Parts: sequence; C-alpha cells; structure tokens
Amino acid sequence: MGVSPDKIGIEWEKVYAERVKGMRASEIRELLKFAKQPGLISLAGGFPDPTLFPVEQIREVTDYILKNYGSDALQYGETEGLKELRQILVERMNKDGINIGIDNLIITTASQQALDMTAKIFISPKDTIIVESPTYLGALQAFYAFEAEFVGINVNDDGIDIEILEDRIKDLIFKKGIKPKFIYAIPNFHNPAGVTLTLERRKKLIEISRRYQIPIIEDDPYGEIRFEGESFPSLISLDTSHVIALRTFSKILSPGLRLGWIIGDPEVIRKIVIAKQGEDLASPSLTQYIAYEFLKRGYLEPYLEKVKVEYKKKRDLMIESMIKYFPEEIKFTRPEGGLFIWVMCPESINTEELFFEAIKEKVAYVIGASFYAHRDVHNCMRLNFSMPSYEQIDEGIKRLGNLFKKKLGK
Amino acid sequence: MGVSPDKIGIEWEKVYAERVKGMRASEIRELLKFAKQPGLISLAGGFPDPTLFPVEQIREVTDYILKNYGSDALQYGETEGLKELRQILVERMNKDGINIGIDNLIITTASQQALDMTAKIFISPKDTIIVESPTYLGALQAFYAFEAEFVGINVNDDGIDIEILEDRIKDLIFKKGIKPKFIYAIPNFHNPAGVTLTLERRKKLIEISRRYQIPIIEDDPYGEIRFEGESFPSLISLDTSHVIALRTFSKILSPGLRLGWIIGDPEVIRKIVIAKQGEDLASPSLTQYIAYEFLKRGYLEPYLEKVKVEYKKKRDLMIESMIKYFPEEIKFTRPEGGLFIWVMCPESINTEELFFEAIKEKVAYVIGASFYAHRDVHNCMRLNFSMPSYEQIDEGIKRLGNLFKKKLGK
Repeated sequence: MGVSPDKIGIEWEKVYAERVKGMRASEIRELLKFAKQPGLISLAGGFPDPTLFPVEQIREVTDYILKNYGSDALQYGETEGLKELRQILVERMNKDGINIGIDNLIITTASQQALDMTAKIFISPKDTIIVESPTYLGALQAFYAFEAEFVGINVNDDGIDIEILEDRIKDLIFKKGIKPKFIYAIPNFHNPAGVTLTLERRKKLIEISRRYQIPIIEDDPYGEIRFEGESFPSLISLDTSHVIALRTFSKILSPGLRLGWIIGDPEVIRKIVIAKQGEDLASPSLTQYIAYEFLKRGYLEPYLEKVKVEYKKKRDLMIESMIKYFPEEIKFTRPEGGLFIWVMCPESINTEELFFEAIKEKVAYVIGASFYAHRDVHNCMRLNFSMPSYEQIDEGIKRLGNLFKKKLGK
Repeated sequence: MGVSPDKIGIEWEKVYAERVKGMRASEIRELLKFAKQPGLISLAGGFPDPTLFPVEQIREVTDYILKNYGSDALQYGETEGLKELRQILVERMNKDGINIGIDNLIITTASQQALDMTAKIFISPKDTIIVESPTYLGALQAFYAFEAEFVGINVNDDGIDIEILEDRIKDLIFKKGIKPKFIYAIPNFHNPAGVTLTLERRKKLIEISRRYQIPIIEDDPYGEIRFEGESFPSLISLDTSHVIALRTFSKILSPGLRLGWIIGDPEVIRKIVIAKQGEDLASPSLTQYIAYEFLKRGYLEPYLEKVKVEYKKKRDLMIESMIKYFPEEIKFTRPEGGLFIWVMCPESINTEELFFEAIKEKVAYVIGASFYAHRDVHNCMRLNFSMPSYEQIDEGIKRLGNLFKKKLGK
C-alpha cells in the first residue's frame, strides 16, 4: 500500500526522460502476477533449483570470511572487483583457452548489470544492434532503455543463421549506410531457444565480426552446465579482440550473490569501469569474498557436477513428458545443457491468448513474443526445467498437452 | 596485466555511444593511484571506520540466515527488494514522520544505483538539472553519463542559497524557457561541504518545488550520524509528493552490503522498478536478509550510537588540529555529523596543484574542483575524519598545515 500524491503533486509524465517511453516492464514479472495461486505449476521462471544450493559450504566460507577478514568484507571494494576473485577467474578462463590477464576482467553485479553497462557505453539513441530471434528478454530490456533499433536474425537448430546474418549486415552497411554497434549472441543452450551454436558457425561468426569490424557480445550464463554432448570453444576463446564476454555466478553458484564478470579488451574494460563507478561504485564486497573463497576451496566443480546430473534428469523427464502428452504438431528443442526448452506450436496457436487458459489450468510458461525484439512471433513458449520438481514437470506438461489437444481439436 | 588486441582489433572509439564522451572517471580514484605509498595518510576517502563494523553481529545473523532460510537467501529476489526489509524500513521511516507505505519504497544496490536510476528515468540529453555547488561527485558522475546540463547553486553555512535558487529558476523558466528536471540536494552534513540545511530553508525549498513543480532529489546518507545539535525534519517528511529520497546502509551499517533504498511517489517507484529490472534485476538477496535480520534484532541503534561517539571524537580532533596547525587564512566548516570537513583556502592556493606537493609530504585529500559540475572552483578541498586514526588525523593535518604555511609565505 502506498501513499499517493495530493493534488498539488508533480505530473511525473512531464518529467520523465525520453527513454522511459521505450522501457518495458518484464512481461514474465507482470504475467506472473496472475500466477500467484495455490497449486499453480510454474514452468515460467529462470531460477536455478534451490534445493541444490550449496548452503552448508556457503555458510562455512562466510563464517570463515567474517572471522578472518570481516572488516574488509564489509567495507567498500574496488570498482573492478576483488582482486583475488578476478585473479582466480582469470586462471579459470586461461584453463578454458581464453588468453587474458587481470586487466581484461571486471566483476559486475551479475549479468544484468553487464548487459546494462554494455548498452550504456555502446548504444546512442537510434543505433542499430543485431540480436538473435528469439533472444534473452533481460537483454532486450537493457537495450530498450538506451533506445536501440533492433535487427533480429533467426536462430535454428545450429544457432544463429550465419548466411542471413552476413546478408543483413551487408545490406545494412552497403545499402543503408548503417553500421551495427554489436552482435549480441548466446552461443550455449540458448535462452530461450535451447540450441547451441556449432563450431563451424562460431568460426564464421568471428570471421564476420572481423570482416565488418562489428564487436560480438557473447552472453554465456549456462556454458558450464552442459550435461551431454561435446562442448565447443567459447567465442572469446576464439578472439579476445572482437568479443566481449559476459559470465555470471547466477546459474553456476547462486543468483542471490548478484555477481558476474565481463571479459574483453582492456580499453573497453576501462570504459566499463567508469560506467560502473556511476552505476553502483562496486559490487558487494561480502558476496565477492564468498565467491572467491568458494572457488579457492575447489567447491565449485563438485557442485556443478551435482547440478548437471540433476538438470539432465529433469530435462530428460520434461522431454519424455512432452513426447507422452504433446500432440505431434507441437515441436520442441532438446538442449544439451542449461535450463530451458523452447516450444514451437502451429501458427494457429497464439501463446499469448493461451497463457490465460493455461493459468486457469494452473500451469504457467513464458510467452514467446517476449523474446523477440519486435514481438512479432506468437506461436512459441519457453519452458524451464531447473526449478520445478519431477512431479510438477510431469503434471505441468500434461496440463499443457491437454490444452494443446483442445486447441488443435483433438 | 591485460592482453591487448592484435592489429585487426576493433577501433573502439568508433563504437562508443555519444554519452561516453561526457562520462568521467572518478578523480578520487585516479588521484589515489599516486597515493599508494607507504606512510601516506589519506584524508581523501569516504569510507566508514572499519574498526567499528559490527562484524560479530553480522556473523551471528548471517549464520542464522544461512541455517534457517539459506535457499531463499541464495535465490533471486524481487526487483522491489525483500518484502520484510522494505516493511521494516517503512516502519522506521514512519517513526521519522515520513508518511509512506510499502509501495513508496524500493531497495537499491546502494545510493549510487539510486542516483543512476534517478538520472536514467528523468534526464534526456541536454536536460537541465539543478545541483548544489559544491555537490557529491558520485552524483555528478551518474548525471554526466546521461548528458545533463548543470546549473549550480552555491551552498553556504545554512545550506543551499534559497534566494539565488529561486532567482535562477525564474530566470531559467521565464527567460530561457527551460524547466529544470529536478533539484538534487544533500540537506544533512553535506558531502563535501559539511553544512546542514536550516529548517527555514527546508520549508522554502519545498515551497519552491511546489511553486515551480520541480521535484527534489533528497540524498541523505548521513542524517542518522548526527553527533550534536538539533536535527531537522527530512525533506521527504515535509512533502512525499514532491520529494524523492535516497537512503543507504553504506554509512550507517556497511558499504560492503551494497544496499540502499529510495522513497517516493508510487508512480515514480514503479518506473524505477522497471529501470532496475534492466540494470541488475534485484539487489543481493543475501545482503538484504542480513540487513533485515540486523534491523529486526535491534542491532542498528546501538551500533549507530557507537559510531556517533567515535566520529564526534574524530571530528573534534580534526578541528582541534586544524586550529593548531592551519594558518588563520584557511577556513573550514564544523559539521555536526557525517564524515567530512570542507576546507576553503585563499584564492592564491590552487588545491589541484597543491595535491602533488601534498602527496610528496605523504598526505592526501580530495581536490575541491571534483565537486563542482563545471570544475570552476580551485581553492577548496574535502577532508575525511571517519577513516583515519587519531594519530593520522593529527599528523595529516599537521602536514597540510605546513604546506599551507609554505604556500602563504609563513
């Protein structure tokens, strides 16, 4: 309950900045207001499974930190981030074949801040950026706020369609005189599409970036949650000059710490440091110490193993249930990692309209349109398998299957 | 050490957004690179005294949290912030005579994020805002990034000069056709000026805000650290319709938690929620639980008492040392709270030039120009008394005094 202004209050609409018109509330958030009812099964969120969190180990390291360097953990830290944490992350990245030093890396208040700061330093109003279609809606939100114009390139089973990408870039540069500011890509277990960019396409994407001098923003929150198949080198490992990589602890450790990191050219990192000074001065010292100590003690790898085993089981179950309950007209991706499955319905099914029926049947998903810069695709949905229990997955998919059958007249 | 791009790397200068030209690195930060030498006494920072941090109590509550609701503390939280924390803050604010409900309040990743989001929702490029001269440099940094034009109004012993303020507003609105977007004010123990806005001026400031329909951004990080004299009602307590108030845990509990809050019209808070979704989704769950539990157990008030006693001692000592060592031409403020003293030298002393001599003498301060939107005042400096020890205060002021005497030919 809030206290509203009296009659002499400010007419805020007259005071807001231009950019506010473009800012959009998260649709997930807004739609989930309908979803707060008992018995509702949410396949909508993007939350890690909280029953797996390494709570005891975090308790152990936090206690150690507060006992041994509590004053430092409670004081302001450097804008670049805790040096020990940056160093241990650099070493991890080096092992992954990413040739960087400490000046290539800054700690962020998780990936959302990385997206925001990347937008802030690169996007002037009306600048064109290239995104995948579909793409992560949190990225769209960050980019909308800086008044970007979007060019969307379709994603298929092998990731972003490289031929179309190059054609569109040529068209933009040579016919329209528009140089896109960057290409935003999610190469592993794409959110929401669930697909992974093939090695061949990774190499071609880098070639395109070099040929047309367009930087790539590589967002990779799920790369370390691969539970089957062969992993491919990250884009940043293929080219540290053209790629700016965003990583996060949210999916591999805990989103409640609000920590991520950016890797890139030291020149870009310096600009991001200046942006971060103006945005939050520094990420939380306490949670940075926790992440550092957790990594130093070697707790991350065993935890990730546990996560991978469990998420694979949940994905298997969701796929199994989809085969069992969905009519054959409903197509879906089969991700080798990550948290999400993407569902493609026949054009006759509008998932925005279906949403309210689904809520009545006590199952929630994220409508596909939210993941398109121009909101121009209406027959898809994103399902999450990391958060719901086995029972919820089976029952939720069953409820969705019944809805699909009804819609398709079966 | 960073790995620099090879020759085919991106020419980043061509990719940056327009606003990057206006963004400025924190001068404190840059200057303090010179200050990393053994034996240097820094009176430059704005850090709370880390020896006072309630480390044991934070250890106790953190352990309790991780034992009892660890999964929640490690999971994503709501963008508005932890409901329990918001509620307990609303109750605190109500006790302070601020008539608000929970929809008037959002948790932020400390005040710097509040400044950034306020700028983001209100400032279009070239918009005019009114700031105090001098003003908090972190606010200037946040506002520069959104390409604001600044009008600075002088601060004297009673706070911002209200007559000049109204004259400038009339001039802007009626002669130049410019409606300022907001007035940014620091009413208590001003950073850097150390002065406090009188009750009479507070009331007049609210009248001006109402008369010309210009919102006030009230930044009050130090209001609860008053160690002597009478406290005045906050601006937000005088008018919840025209004032947006920024508060923080950084100075009253711990900056390492990175937590603050904004109070305002629910309509503005909703816009800030959307901005925050794009900026960092939510503040850290873990540190929000810590702050909540700390408040709930009643640990804040006794801690604040300790802080006030200690900071008063340090302020007394710094003033005493200034009287002892500074030539009489050097003027300074006598704050009744907060962390800072403002030093005004004769025009003949340029504190930017003096800085390098001071570093040679192993004492550091923040140059006054950093606190002016147009960097047009060169004879002032900000000194901090919360962080240095008694010995450092006395010795640091002595070294500065010697420098002043040399400069003034004494």
